[in-house]
Amino acid sequence: MTEEIRIIAIEGVPEVAVGDDLARLIVDAAGAGGLADRDVVVIAHKVVSKSEGRLAPGHDRRDAVLAESARVLRKAGDMVISETRHGFVCANAGVDASNVEGDQVVLLPLDPDLSARRLRARFLHLTGADVAVVISDTFGRAWRLGQTNVAIGVAGIDAFLDYRGGRDGQGRELVATHICVADELAGAAELVMQKTTGICAVIVRGAPVLFGRGSAASIVRPPEDDLFR
Amino acid sequence: MTEEIRIIAIEGVPEVAVGDDLARLIVDAAGAGGLADRDVVVIAHKVVSKSEGRLAPGHDRRDAVLAESARVLRKAGDMVISETRHGFVCANAGVDASNVEGDQVVLLPLDPDLSARRLRARFLHLTGADVAVVISDTFGRAWRLGQTNVAIGVAGIDAFLDYRGGRDGQGRELVATHICVADELAGAAELVMQKTTGICAVIVRGAPVLFGRGSAASIVRPPEDDLFR
Repeated sequence: MTEEIRIIAIEGVPEVAVGDDLARLIVDAAGAGGLADRDVVVIAHKVVSKSEGRLAPGHDRRDAVLAESARVLRKAGDMVISETRHGFVCANAGVDASNVEGDQVVLLPLDPDLSARRLRARFLHLTGADVAVVISDTFGRAWRLGQTNVAIGVAGIDAFLDYRGGRDGQGRELVATHICVADELAGAAELVMQKTTGICAVIVRGAPVLFGRGSAASIVRPPEDDLFR
Repeated sequence: MTEEIRIIAIEGVPEVAVGDDLARLIVDAAGAGGLADRDVVVIAHKVVSKSEGRLAPGHDRRDAVLAESARVLRKAGDMVISETRHGFVCANAGVDASNVEGDQVVLLPLDPDLSARRLRARFLHLTGADVAVVISDTFGRAWRLGQTNVAIGVAGIDAFLDYRGGRDGQGRELVATHICVADELAGAAELVMQKTTGICAVIVRGAPVLFGRGSAASIVRPPEDDLFR
């Protein structure tokens, strides 16, 4: 049984540029023995996108937002709430201007689950550690103010823990308990990703997750099943 | 700077009954030196509601859901998405049948922020430790499948960390970065609250939060500012 979970900042990852071997930068910063089997490495999408060259000129930000939007759900002033090609619903299709050099904006990775799988394979190659990877972004949400970190890419774990069909302490069947641990891992990691100090990667150690196949695509609620889209 | 956060399960809290001194049960389970200044104690709302007698007969579950709903937003089969008296939007107004003895359902606390403040004061009285308290529940959300733990009661910390007006690593102003740390703390705690093993209270130690006044009421997005209500 998990009695304690540790959320450990990986400090000292340098500025990331297009073409960088991001996994190596993270491994070097984590130091010898930094990653261990069954760790979950949560990585801010921004450094993933930068390493993959997913940038656009800042003066075309409006165009970039529309190009990145599969569908616009709402407009409010300068901001749009849109659905991305991945099916994520977020502000400005995830196009972000903070923490980027020069006149550029950062786009979401084209296929964040693929990015996560590649990073996971590279971590294994570089360290021998069989870790899971969650790529995170900071999304607003309906009904509640503020933003939280959520998972936009997942590799090596199921995005969910499913208690449906299980029994509670009274032997009663647990219904509708289908926890999105990937989002909770991303949120937990955000607590140490203090934006202004530049932490872009975090180790979550000891979390009760299901190692195996998984994806952030599995988190997208099918539109036909969505009462609020 | 926070380099690591620990999420520590408080094991051995017994079944909670109406009128129980919940803070004492948690303190006794945590053991000597269990709570420390600036810890955040995350508590599942279910034990708070039980201790406060917020229960209803199970055969009146439908009536309880309607009585607890200030407004019904959507209906889907046997489930309603409603707004509670507190302004929270969730399934079945937070009325829950799992982990309750006999033919009863658990309602949300009448004033979860007040419950959090009372628990915090009681922790201080019993242990001398000046902790923050987050009362959590498991909510679904729009657009994304599964549920995550969120804060429905807060005492002793600001529910948010506000980076608006701050500068990023390039000296660029950070816009619209207003992190709901209370929800991220609740989600992080859920990772160790494995429902079937009955963990109802968790210590989060080392989180970068603003100690001081705060509430979960401050998380409710005003309806007039909500594009999806």
